[in-house]
Amino acid sequence: MTRKIHLALHPYGVGGPGQHGLWRDPSIAKNASIDIGYYIQQAQAAEHALFDALFIVDSQFIDPTYPAHYLNRLEPLTLLSAVATHTKHIGLVGTASSTYNSPFNLARRFGSLDHISGGRAGWNVVTSFDTGTSRNYGLDEHLDYTTRYGRALEAVRVIQGLWDSYEDDAFPADVERGVFLDPEKLHALNHVGEHFRVDGPLNLSRSPQGQPVIFQAGVSEEGRNFAAQVAEGIYAPAGPLDQARAYYEDIKRRTAAAGRDPEHIKIFIHAGPIVRATDDEARRRAREIFEEDNDFDRDLALLGRAFGAHDFSQYDLDAPFPDVAHLAERGGRTAAAKIIERARTEGLTLRQVVEASFGQKQSPFVGAPGTVADAIEHWFAAGTFDGLNLAFRNNEDLERFVDGVVPLLQKRGLFRTEYESGTLRGNLGLPVPVNRHTRERSLVDA
Amino acid sequence: MTRKIHLALHPYGVGGPGQHGLWRDPSIAKNASIDIGYYIQQAQAAEHALFDALFIVDSQFIDPTYPAHYLNRLEPLTLLSAVATHTKHIGLVGTASSTYNSPFNLARRFGSLDHISGGRAGWNVVTSFDTGTSRNYGLDEHLDYTTRYGRALEAVRVIQGLWDSYEDDAFPADVERGVFLDPEKLHALNHVGEHFRVDGPLNLSRSPQGQPVIFQAGVSEEGRNFAAQVAEGIYAPAGPLDQARAYYEDIKRRTAAAGRDPEHIKIFIHAGPIVRATDDEARRRAREIFEEDNDFDRDLALLGRAFGAHDFSQYDLDAPFPDVAHLAERGGRTAAAKIIERARTEGLTLRQVVEASFGQKQSPFVGAPGTVADAIEHWFAAGTFDGLNLAFRNNEDLERFVDGVVPLLQKRGLFRTEYESGTLRGNLGLPVPVNRHTRERSLVDA
Repeated sequence: MTRKIHLALHPYGVGGPGQHGLWRDPSIAKNASIDIGYYIQQAQAAEHALFDALFIVDSQFIDPTYPAHYLNRLEPLTLLSAVATHTKHIGLVGTASSTYNSPFNLARRFGSLDHISGGRAGWNVVTSFDTGTSRNYGLDEHLDYTTRYGRALEAVRVIQGLWDSYEDDAFPADVERGVFLDPEKLHALNHVGEHFRVDGPLNLSRSPQGQPVIFQAGVSEEGRNFAAQVAEGIYAPAGPLDQARAYYEDIKRRTAAAGRDPEHIKIFIHAGPIVRATDDEARRRAREIFEEDNDFDRDLALLGRAFGAHDFSQYDLDAPFPDVAHLAERGGRTAAAKIIERARTEGLTLRQVVEASFGQKQSPFVGAPGTVADAIEHWFAAGTFDGLNLAFRNNEDLERFVDGVVPLLQKRGLFRTEYESGTLRGNLGLPVPVNRHTRERSLVDA
Repeated sequence: MTRKIHLALHPYGVGGPGQHGLWRDPSIAKNASIDIGYYIQQAQAAEHALFDALFIVDSQFIDPTYPAHYLNRLEPLTLLSAVATHTKHIGLVGTASSTYNSPFNLARRFGSLDHISGGRAGWNVVTSFDTGTSRNYGLDEHLDYTTRYGRALEAVRVIQGLWDSYEDDAFPADVERGVFLDPEKLHALNHVGEHFRVDGPLNLSRSPQGQPVIFQAGVSEEGRNFAAQVAEGIYAPAGPLDQARAYYEDIKRRTAAAGRDPEHIKIFIHAGPIVRATDDEARRRAREIFEEDNDFDRDLALLGRAFGAHDFSQYDLDAPFPDVAHLAERGGRTAAAKIIERARTEGLTLRQVVEASFGQKQSPFVGAPGTVADAIEHWFAAGTFDGLNLAFRNNEDLERFVDGVVPLLQKRGLFRTEYESGTLRGNLGLPVPVNRHTRERSLVDA
């Protein structure tokens, strides 16, 4: 069996980063990001095209300079629960912060989505890098990187423990014997760790896929180790092909080193394909978008975001990159350290840093359907991804990809022609985890 | 215009308190409490009958003795978001604890439900009385009553502040001027209080009803004062008629004393009507249910729940009620103090206390449709409620009420014949709160 490509859709409503001007598009409703009808339509279109998942990103802090979609959008779990009953096969991956939610609440909410969707839930674990977020949750200081990732790892393990509170046969519901619950099959967790103390049990049973799928987004050292230990899916930026391949190999190696099957972590990279009838037309459209969305002042503010909302407009744009190393830990984002390193080794000015880091990137997937299918096949064969997390500017662009590129990928045996399963695990080729208590019991019995 | 009765439906899946044996009913699916299809069907049936709201209770702690519905149920906000897109008029009231959720997260989730439902969300604020809950959230000791209610009041005010982050005209989305957001209409909260520090703003605009409706359930002194200050709806136990009337008058008086219009707090009492073709048949059915559900040992465990999971089986059942006053604050429930007081003044044994406090209660709404309609009219005219929060044992019982009693209430002008509005506020006759910043601005301009 040929390895197959997985596809996810990443809807950006009125426009996220790299699509700041999207709200001006007359084909996009001005309230798309808070309109559940928009998300249902996106999910149904993606499901019609046999995509693996709808992927909903999130943040809990805004200022007025942020992209339109960030300013006013639905909370991912409420959003996905509403989408769930209007779809049957597509996975529903929601972002939630392990820094600003308690494990018991996250376990219940993702567990509930998993039941509502019949086993299609995924949790994209983030630790929240916006410094300002902490002040929406009563903390004076943003937690540093190591603390946030330590907390994230412990949170995932606690939550997975809570998801196993009930063994699969815990509810005989036997009227004759008068037994609804078999109390032997209900297990407290009694977790005491560095960041959390959680007794359990959770008041919710397991879903058809056993447990929601754990996703993770992040490229830092801490993020990679976290992924290797617990992630079953990754959402990564693409970058140039060599960089994507190195990242892919590194994650698979670390996962194997952590004692896990590297096939059980699926790496999705971000892609924003531009498909038109001809290569020329597609390239023209790409250039048009580049010019439309280019905004140096906005990108200067985005640079500040990576350094704890630092104001870079105070510096000379054409002087060497200022000494802001002390702010990198406060912002806490790996991006900050990378920016500093690159500015130093390449001797860049502030202006050059902004253009290199936040300016519009050219997608490698621009062209006629055949060209884009070729490029996707090339990147896939080169070992850069297991799946693509696709963002389109509007429905027409989504349709052009679905009608033009998907059939070519199918013809080449690179994409499914029907869903393998009704669960997210089933479609991603991930195993259903056996309940830990059932496993222990079977080990004792053996 | 005659005052009208409001009706809510309170689905209990496989059986909550007072319906412990419900899971044995062959007409109820054994997985009803985790089946979103069950809740959608209940909501649609209630909407078809023009009910004001679907009311979802909640808890975050279980032990194996708890009623079947408690053991394994969906989280209310995920549940209601899924129900929202399958209904058009009915209000969606979800329970969430102000003790174990951060205000920013609650504001986003209820705000999102309010958008998804087009302005039909309500938040039933609870402070969580199960002692064991604290150990699912990392706390050694359960917070005491006063702290929990102080925190609840501050949480509601913070959340209402966050819901006003955007004024209603904050998003001109004017392509010509290139203005999506008018930053003057976005407001940080910068709250610093005893329990919370929350900067804001919230990344979500207001819904068609302005803000979700605040409900509260509780009869303690703290609960009543909390209600008088911020609640717009109350869910109270019924008790005998005199007690319900005294409660009703007390709440309305306190609300007026707090400077609010007493019409802007709607008091719902719990009701479990039993409707049959004749009074005799209904009374027979009531007796049958009483006998089916009677379980002294279970009720003894329930008594323990009010005293911080204390084990009462260690005492002589026929000796005077034991001295457990020191446990009442730990359990923290007003019920505990009331039980002690009653045992003392009436000189009850432990067995008598259990039977009086947790034994099956006879509903005042038992009989043929005309009898039940008469009783409801009598209680309503006596000033005991604005609405009934109805629990039925199964769909047949719901249908008997809807088909038999509702048309009689309509004929008497006591219940609506069509929805007044598409929002929960509109149907409850509650005003849409003007955004506080818009109000301030208009005061300054005047």
